[in-house]
Amino acid sequence: MGERVAVDEHARFVRSLLASLGARPTERVPLDDALGRITASPVESPIPLPPFRNAQMDGFAVRAADVAGASAESSVALPVVGELAAAPGTPEPLIAGTAVRIMTGAPVPDGADAVVPVEDTESARDGATVRIRRSRAAGEYVREAGSDLAAGADVLPAGIRLEPRHLAAAAASGLAELLVRERVRVAVVSTGSELVAPGERLAPGEIPDANGVALVAAVRAAGAVVRHTARVRDDVERLRVELDAAVDAGAELILTSGGISQGAYEVVRELIEPLGAWVGSVAMQPGGPQATGVYRGVPLIGFPGNPVSTQLSFALFVAPSLRAIAGLPPPRSERLPLAEAITSIPGRRQILRGRRTPDGTAAPVGGPGSHLVAALAASDLLIVVPEYVTSLDAGDLVDTVDL
Amino acid sequence: MGERVAVDEHARFVRSLLASLGARPTERVPLDDALGRITASPVESPIPLPPFRNAQMDGFAVRAADVAGASAESSVALPVVGELAAAPGTPEPLIAGTAVRIMTGAPVPDGADAVVPVEDTESARDGATVRIRRSRAAGEYVREAGSDLAAGADVLPAGIRLEPRHLAAAAASGLAELLVRERVRVAVVSTGSELVAPGERLAPGEIPDANGVALVAAVRAAGAVVRHTARVRDDVERLRVELDAAVDAGAELILTSGGISQGAYEVVRELIEPLGAWVGSVAMQPGGPQATGVYRGVPLIGFPGNPVSTQLSFALFVAPSLRAIAGLPPPRSERLPLAEAITSIPGRRQILRGRRTPDGTAAPVGGPGSHLVAALAASDLLIVVPEYVTSLDAGDLVDTVDL
Repeated sequence: MGERVAVDEHARFVRSLLASLGARPTERVPLDDALGRITASPVESPIPLPPFRNAQMDGFAVRAADVAGASAESSVALPVVGELAAAPGTPEPLIAGTAVRIMTGAPVPDGADAVVPVEDTESARDGATVRIRRSRAAGEYVREAGSDLAAGADVLPAGIRLEPRHLAAAAASGLAELLVRERVRVAVVSTGSELVAPGERLAPGEIPDANGVALVAAVRAAGAVVRHTARVRDDVERLRVELDAAVDAGAELILTSGGISQGAYEVVRELIEPLGAWVGSVAMQPGGPQATGVYRGVPLIGFPGNPVSTQLSFALFVAPSLRAIAGLPPPRSERLPLAEAITSIPGRRQILRGRRTPDGTAAPVGGPGSHLVAALAASDLLIVVPEYVTSLDAGDLVDTVDL
Repeated sequence: MGERVAVDEHARFVRSLLASLGARPTERVPLDDALGRITASPVESPIPLPPFRNAQMDGFAVRAADVAGASAESSVALPVVGELAAAPGTPEPLIAGTAVRIMTGAPVPDGADAVVPVEDTESARDGATVRIRRSRAAGEYVREAGSDLAAGADVLPAGIRLEPRHLAAAAASGLAELLVRERVRVAVVSTGSELVAPGERLAPGEIPDANGVALVAAVRAAGAVVRHTARVRDDVERLRVELDAAVDAGAELILTSGGISQGAYEVVRELIEPLGAWVGSVAMQPGGPQATGVYRGVPLIGFPGNPVSTQLSFALFVAPSLRAIAGLPPPRSERLPLAEAITSIPGRRQILRGRRTPDGTAAPVGGPGSHLVAALAASDLLIVVPEYVTSLDAGDLVDTVDL
């Protein structure tokens, strides 16, 4: 069995193995597909925002000088020489001493330098004349071209996770697509002769493959994409075929479950140990057996076959790297009082599953067994018991991490 | 213009208009497509978890009574009569006084009631005999069928948002698909003769349609799906065609932008007001013009044409209902000190865009203008200034909502 590797050391090693994934290739994606992606570079707006000088209110475009003295008591009458909607076209310049009816967003004609909102005006019944009842300074209710952003300025910085407001600003800048980081491509391979696809009828000794479903979902939840999935019986050559298929499909990371402990049919161990991979034991419960290696140039992380072990191992060792690459925050971690006393094995970090109770304590759910997949589903946090702790009382503070 | 409706009253009205969307139809989806969906009913496991009694460790399956006196000093020798892997098949019953080598997960044979881990044993060189060096009580290192969950018990409750651990538990229960709530189907229709698709060359007076992109992304971020999108010039008949197409495509909610203010080309107003819709003004800035109605039985929410107004209106009035239906939490809201003094219009709730500064204050970004789409993209929170407040000093506490 050899020495057990410390959890933090294993985590560091996995992180270093995955570090190369952080240098992402880039791709151009249409705005409608870019939600949640990460900008690969600063995004320059080719046009000013707004693109042209336009009206901020429905009203009348005027020369401010022509209405300088206007008030409710002493309104200024101007002939209305036209009407401007928010629509394609270039308006004629405004002739001094006249007004043009204008809609919000319509281009303000050359010569005009203010918009008088409609509520400060009174139109003649035939619309030919407007009485301006309030003076407006030059620039009032006029949005200057570039007043939001100058042409050539960055509308978005590099490295942000794209939310709707970012896509809106890119669209307003006249961009149809954005340069984003490619998502990490992951392969998920379950091993075990006892496994069948969930939903298939179970013969004696068979169980549904929960690890494949769990890892596919966990990879996606961590912002990566799944490029290859397989389920293989305990047969080294079948496993080799699937790992080759994963590499050929462009996987940048291979995750396996099962086949790495001390038993007689440890198919992952048999295949990758001769290639120089490490297959050993980490000082944690559940999830002791772990493996790390490189298969045809692709990092491979091997998890144990127990579904709880695999899920917690992914959460502890792989999710942090993938989430960081995808611009996702780490899960909330918090110190909470234990709802009840617990015991733990000395020398191993125990990861208990639990629930946050209404009164803010952490209550263990379902015991330490690595097969308690329903209990894990009923949990909403993990309770971390340090290696040197063998018992804790109700009320003792423990580190918890949200699931 | 008429009276301005209070923001909270409008929010309540929109919420009531969308309340019927909360009664979701259901659909069956494969586990691999169920991440983030909401369970429509409790999910029963048709099998016990684990499905059969199996070994928790690699070791030897024995009768506990046969090894009752075993210790390091006085080990008990048993003939090894077979080997059991985690693989299909039903093991022969264990004969009293013998042991079977067993791998983790393999079925424990009838007659055996304990597993002695391999580290507490010593095998003869030919494997024919094992010396048991530690007694084990009945049940030790044996996972009983149903010890995680009984057959017929609920493995998942109704109404939860499916995370990887839930899908893993459903898979372990032998389920291939889950009954989930359908996502809300939304149509997004931008109006305005000045609008062109983002990326198209702009003629004078034209601007890219940012609202379509913004609303499509915002609908998805709120957990709903987009069923129809359109961009129409200011032409009532064209708008009617697109709203009909939206209804025919199965949209349950129609969102429009533009065409609802006081100008001369208010196409949404012209179409829906005669149908009994409300088109009016809400006491907020930006986003004063708003519309609500029902088009061929489908709720329609009309937003103003300014992209900032549309985005904030969606966030304030529509996102809360859609997020609640999708099981998403509301955005974080917090009271923060203002980084600088601000002024506000009396009688209107002002929604300023801002950033959380490193020292935990809320700093306004870009001013109140509803055209400042780049400034909104550079913001990470909204600052809510109440209707009755006309000025605030630096350091005054304000309500903020995370973007």
